[in-house]
Amino acid sequence: MEFSSKLLEKAVHEMAQLPGIGKRTALRLVLHLLRQPAQQTSFLAEALVGMRENIRFCKSCHNISDTEVCEICANGSRDQGVVCVVEDVRDVMAIENTRQFRGIYHVLGGKISPIDGIGPSQLTIAPLVDKVKSGSVRELIFALSSTMEGDTTNFFIYKQIKESGITVSTIARGIAVGDELEYADEVTLGRSILQRIPFENALKNN
Amino acid sequence: MEFSSKLLEKAVHEMAQLPGIGKRTALRLVLHLLRQPAQQTSFLAEALVGMRENIRFCKSCHNISDTEVCEICANGSRDQGVVCVVEDVRDVMAIENTRQFRGIYHVLGGKISPIDGIGPSQLTIAPLVDKVKSGSVRELIFALSSTMEGDTTNFFIYKQIKESGITVSTIARGIAVGDELEYADEVTLGRSILQRIPFENALKNN
Repeated sequence: MEFSSKLLEKAVHEMAQLPGIGKRTALRLVLHLLRQPAQQTSFLAEALVGMRENIRFCKSCHNISDTEVCEICANGSRDQGVVCVVEDVRDVMAIENTRQFRGIYHVLGGKISPIDGIGPSQLTIAPLVDKVKSGSVRELIFALSSTMEGDTTNFFIYKQIKESGITVSTIARGIAVGDELEYADEVTLGRSILQRIPFENALKNN
Repeated sequence: MEFSSKLLEKAVHEMAQLPGIGKRTALRLVLHLLRQPAQQTSFLAEALVGMRENIRFCKSCHNISDTEVCEICANGSRDQGVVCVVEDVRDVMAIENTRQFRGIYHVLGGKISPIDGIGPSQLTIAPLVDKVKSGSVRELIFALSSTMEGDTTNFFIYKQIKESGITVSTIARGIAVGDELEYADEVTLGRSILQRIPFENALKNN
């Protein structure tokens, strides 16, 4: 791609550093900003820099927060003894949207993934283990995605806390509500049969 | 979507103003920036603001340029009498990549589109007409996309310059090189038959 302007080239280059944004898309986005009032670009730039420089993480659950302790951890009506372990803030938002969980979270910040160079020390595993050992946790719920990395991370944490004797569970895997059986993948369908639940329990949750 | 941080929410909101970027994608991009060194965010912000504030348009062809007159217009070896009319800078880049055009460009900045509220006065049509009337142009090549808006824009310009008697052409429409006839749309195939060219001309251009 040959640019008629260094300023344009630099803006496209920086925009194309974002994941999933190629050079062509970056050019389209940058040209869009050029057609909009200059204000839009400065609002975007200020919002990004302001966030990157001032964002904080809850000192208890490591979720993104504007305060030292996030709203969920600070909420007295939530069960501080039930901790749901998730990968990142998007998972917290997704579970909060269901309005089915009244415990608190622990945000790991990723999954153990040697291929991507992410080891246990880059995740907030140590504070989670400390929290369990301090005796304040009654149940730990693993809610990582069920991939090789997710399973590895679950097991790595489990090994360090199993001595504590607390309840450790993992979110149910199975056929999504509303899905047709014939289109489900074998592994999911197989698990959903092996891990079947009493019909009365299913009735209760409707 | 409920955010645990106002800073995060604001950054996602501004990012989601970009065309084709929804709230979910915006959140993914913003979280990516949080995982990268702070430098990456400030580089992106500086590149965007620097571009938006300092970018200039060539006073002759209205292409994006860092100088008063762009490199193409200032290039003495290019034929200043042949002007290719395009919609935006991406079209200039696409045609330049072919290395088949040795004239200069005129960037309209869009197409006449009443639905999008874009009238002739928002495009650089007046300076193009002036340029033709000044007598410096021998041939005008319309290279807008062949949509209703493109055709309208071509015709609007044509009406104002036809008196000048210069050659006015439009880029060839037809079956793309390498495409199978059976998959071509009817309109394109029909045009490519009606606007057939001497076989010897096709041989020359290979």
